[in-house]
Amino acid sequence: VAHTLAELAARVGGEVAGDPRREITGVRTLRSAGPEHLAFLSGNRYLEEARATRAGAVLIARRRADLCCDQLVTDNVPLALARLLELFHPPIPPAAGIHPTAVVAAGARVDSAAHVGPYVVIGDEVEIGPGAALHAHVVVGRGCRIGAGSVLRPHVVLYDGVRIGDGVEVHAGAVLGADGFGYAVEDGAPRKIPQVGGVVIGDQVEIGALTAIDRAVIDDTTIGSRTKIDNLVQVGHNSRVGSAVTISGQTGLAGSAHVADQAVIGGQVGINGHMTVGAGTQVAGQSLVISTTEPRAVVAGSPAVPIGSWRRQQAMLGRLTEIWRRLRRLERHTGLEAPAAKGEGER
Amino acid sequence: VAHTLAELAARVGGEVAGDPRREITGVRTLRSAGPEHLAFLSGNRYLEEARATRAGAVLIARRRADLCCDQLVTDNVPLALARLLELFHPPIPPAAGIHPTAVVAAGARVDSAAHVGPYVVIGDEVEIGPGAALHAHVVVGRGCRIGAGSVLRPHVVLYDGVRIGDGVEVHAGAVLGADGFGYAVEDGAPRKIPQVGGVVIGDQVEIGALTAIDRAVIDDTTIGSRTKIDNLVQVGHNSRVGSAVTISGQTGLAGSAHVADQAVIGGQVGINGHMTVGAGTQVAGQSLVISTTEPRAVVAGSPAVPIGSWRRQQAMLGRLTEIWRRLRRLERHTGLEAPAAKGEGER
Amino acid sequence: VAHTLAELAARVGGEVAGDPRREITGVRTLRSAGPEHLAFLSGNRYLEEARATRAGAVLIARRRADLCCDQLVTDNVPLALARLLELFHPPIPPAAGIHPTAVVAAGARVDSAAHVGPYVVIGDEVEIGPGAALHAHVVVGRGCRIGAGSVLRPHVVLYDGVRIGDGVEVHAGAVLGADGFGYAVEDGAPRKIPQVGGVVIGDQVEIGALTAIDRAVIDDTTIGSRTKIDNLVQVGHNSRVGSAVTISGQTGLAGSAHVADQAVIGGQVGINGHMTVGAGTQVAGQSLVISTTEPRAVVAGSPAVPIGSWRRQQAMLGRLTEIWRRLRRLERHTGLEAPAAKGEGER
Repeated sequence: VAHTLAELAARVGGEVAGDPRREITGVRTLRSAGPEHLAFLSGNRYLEEARATRAGAVLIARRRADLCCDQLVTDNVPLALARLLELFHPPIPPAAGIHPTAVVAAGARVDSAAHVGPYVVIGDEVEIGPGAALHAHVVVGRGCRIGAGSVLRPHVVLYDGVRIGDGVEVHAGAVLGADGFGYAVEDGAPRKIPQVGGVVIGDQVEIGALTAIDRAVIDDTTIGSRTKIDNLVQVGHNSRVGSAVTISGQTGLAGSAHVADQAVIGGQVGINGHMTVGAGTQVAGQSLVISTTEPRAVVAGSPAVPIGSWRRQQAMLGRLTEIWRRLRRLERHTGLEAPAAKGEGER
Repeated sequence: VAHTLAELAARVGGEVAGDPRREITGVRTLRSAGPEHLAFLSGNRYLEEARATRAGAVLIARRRADLCCDQLVTDNVPLALARLLELFHPPIPPAAGIHPTAVVAAGARVDSAAHVGPYVVIGDEVEIGPGAALHAHVVVGRGCRIGAGSVLRPHVVLYDGVRIGDGVEVHAGAVLGADGFGYAVEDGAPRKIPQVGGVVIGDQVEIGALTAIDRAVIDDTTIGSRTKIDNLVQVGHNSRVGSAVTISGQTGLAGSAHVADQAVIGGQVGINGHMTVGAGTQVAGQSLVISTTEPRAVVAGSPAVPIGSWRRQQAMLGRLTEIWRRLRRLERHTGLEAPAAKGEGER
Repeated sequence: VAHTLAELAARVGGEVAGDPRREITGVRTLRSAGPEHLAFLSGNRYLEEARATRAGAVLIARRRADLCCDQLVTDNVPLALARLLELFHPPIPPAAGIHPTAVVAAGARVDSAAHVGPYVVIGDEVEIGPGAALHAHVVVGRGCRIGAGSVLRPHVVLYDGVRIGDGVEVHAGAVLGADGFGYAVEDGAPRKIPQVGGVVIGDQVEIGALTAIDRAVIDDTTIGSRTKIDNLVQVGHNSRVGSAVTISGQTGLAGSAHVADQAVIGGQVGINGHMTVGAGTQVAGQSLVISTTEPRAVVAGSPAVPIGSWRRQQAMLGRLTEIWRRLRRLERHTGLEAPAAKGEGER
């Protein structure tokens, strides 16, 4: 289906610079778009591609005179992009019903408007809400709860007692509720501390492929509503992640970490046990948080420090050889050569 | 079921400070415990919570006068916690027998006291010991051996020829025996070196969710008894991990790494190929081990150095701007300004 | 079966130093080989073991006078090793045919010479080429294409529309085509941007266990032919990986990263979004690439810098305490003590 630029502008609350009657059949990148497509420019990184694009129109934050094509101007380009992709690619929910190969325990309650795919295994005392979809090979342990409209992609595993809110999406291979990594030391070897707590996931959460969220030793590991977690992330036992947090791929939270609301955590970040990342704090990729951060801080480095300190450190690191050389020049100048006996000479 | 504090003290070899007849129905955290619960205090991090707890009693390493509640005093709090959680939460092994949907090769030998869940696939010449439990969707390749009482959680995959000892627990989605990452270079492109070795896991080992332990190119990748490995860990081909080692989440061992007995490896650590981590050595989180460490060393950093050196480095990094400023002051003072021609001025 | 050293030499294009009629029944490591085996020595790291080996012969790059055993001398030891392991361990492809428990959509086209294992689930409009093998529990979404001879190990998941070339091997638990991690910000919370692009994998690619390659937001995430990716790697949406690239375990590519042909990426590396790693560039383990690198560069560090700069930085880091001490000695010598009022004294 095609929509005019004017229709698209109305949908996203934007304005058309150019021909409002131009017909658009889909969204493409600047490189791949043709005259019937809308492309998008977010920031100026791809400005050259925007100048060269064959797109019929470009979604853009501010009108530019140096682009040939029509422009759909809107403050929040990513949000407009989200809305337009939803328009052109409406999700098709799988049909309600339980596949004949699914193994569903007698005491499980599966809403009649839920989809249960082939080879799904559902334990006793499980509750699955309307519109939920459990794709092929999902395994749901005893006593789990899955809210309305939540989607578990193929091969997701829930251990016993995991509770998931409404509108959650869990991607393939993710494991929720495996035992936390907790051991006592007995006779010089680790001895397992039983992990008898749970996992509670709020509403509208998204959890990436192959991510592991461990159950608590006692009480619950919790993920707040509207939080988004990327692939291959590790959330240790008893961690508390607030709402509207984003956590990028391969990041790890050790046990009892607390990430407050709206924090933005980069990829491959480590957060030490018992530490708090303050509300709205941003943590740069590959950082290691070893102490509690202030709210709305921006930190980087391993160990993480405020981003300003990190930048100065980096600038100075690039200058270390020069510092060394100038220090030695000063020593020569002042006759204060390092005594050779102490082995302090040039190495 | 309830137990008196005196009974619990006897079980863990501790002493009661307070009412030995107090009845305890379970273990909770300091925050969530009520009068019928035992909470625990490990270290002083949560001392404030201990002072405010509603718990009937607290498990603690040394008697404190500033707590209102009864106290169960024991040297090794984590070990006592392990024992008490085992008491209040005895594990319930799954029923013996093979689920009708399991696909078991004719030549596999499954002990009659083993549990084989729905949709498990077992290859030829496999041997599974008494009390072992293979949960839903586990795949066991040809010629594997799984010892008595070992538990494979849902979706675990064993490639051909993996040998697992007794009392091992492998968490959901872990992959044992996939090909190691080994290539020759032929005409500028990587060409696979067949990985024809195996994987051997000792007794009482625990392996986390979504962890990958690769098969050896030749001989075996080995994990020693009582070793505990967390989630999302990568163990490269021909690595040798000793006994009673603990390896935290997202750590990676490159090929032919050797981690000796009782080493303690933090999260997100990298260990380079062919390196040895000495017995009892501790490696801090996010470190990169690029050379062999001494036994009982404590190392940190990327690359890893002894922790004392790492701490001095970190202290000095925080002082770099000051060093730079004071160096320049000295230069001005001595009339030894950096010659502008050389571009050494303030940047 | 046994082969003479002369036969083996002919196969790998090498020369025999010693008895060409010696019969070899297999390849072992220097430690485990006996007189009927060929061992191999790559570099000099294991020279001591080579001197002590019981192997009948050693595969080696240059003839050595200090080894007792016969020698098979060849320029490219790893390549010769690959060929000889192929000789002694010829792969046994699984039998063609579809297991009765597989759920194959009516509109899927599975070549009669393909193997489809137990509990495999194949969606509509899927195309599977001759000689392809889908092992137990593989899930293939709607509209996927899998080329001739490609192998999907147990539990691999392909989301809808993933296209895989010929001769590809994907290891257990890998997830191809999950949604990329893309969100707009709406009212302070992340809102999902639909991920409607695809994933395209070239020919002769190998993908490790538990690796995630996300689908593009628009267009495709692409992996070039002959590229090899290790376990637990994350490839973000819209990334472009060239041909003959190798990427070691636990590395992560953020969105829209570009890794050019023949690059060699170490383990636990991070590559920031929109950055390019130049053709043939080598990135050391645990590095963080935050800017585009030149072709054939060698970089290390977090953030990554040319390896020479990194080495100088590391050397200087080890000297920081000395710099500090010598700076203070100079200050004393010149009477330029740091003014106490400014808090610059020894800390």
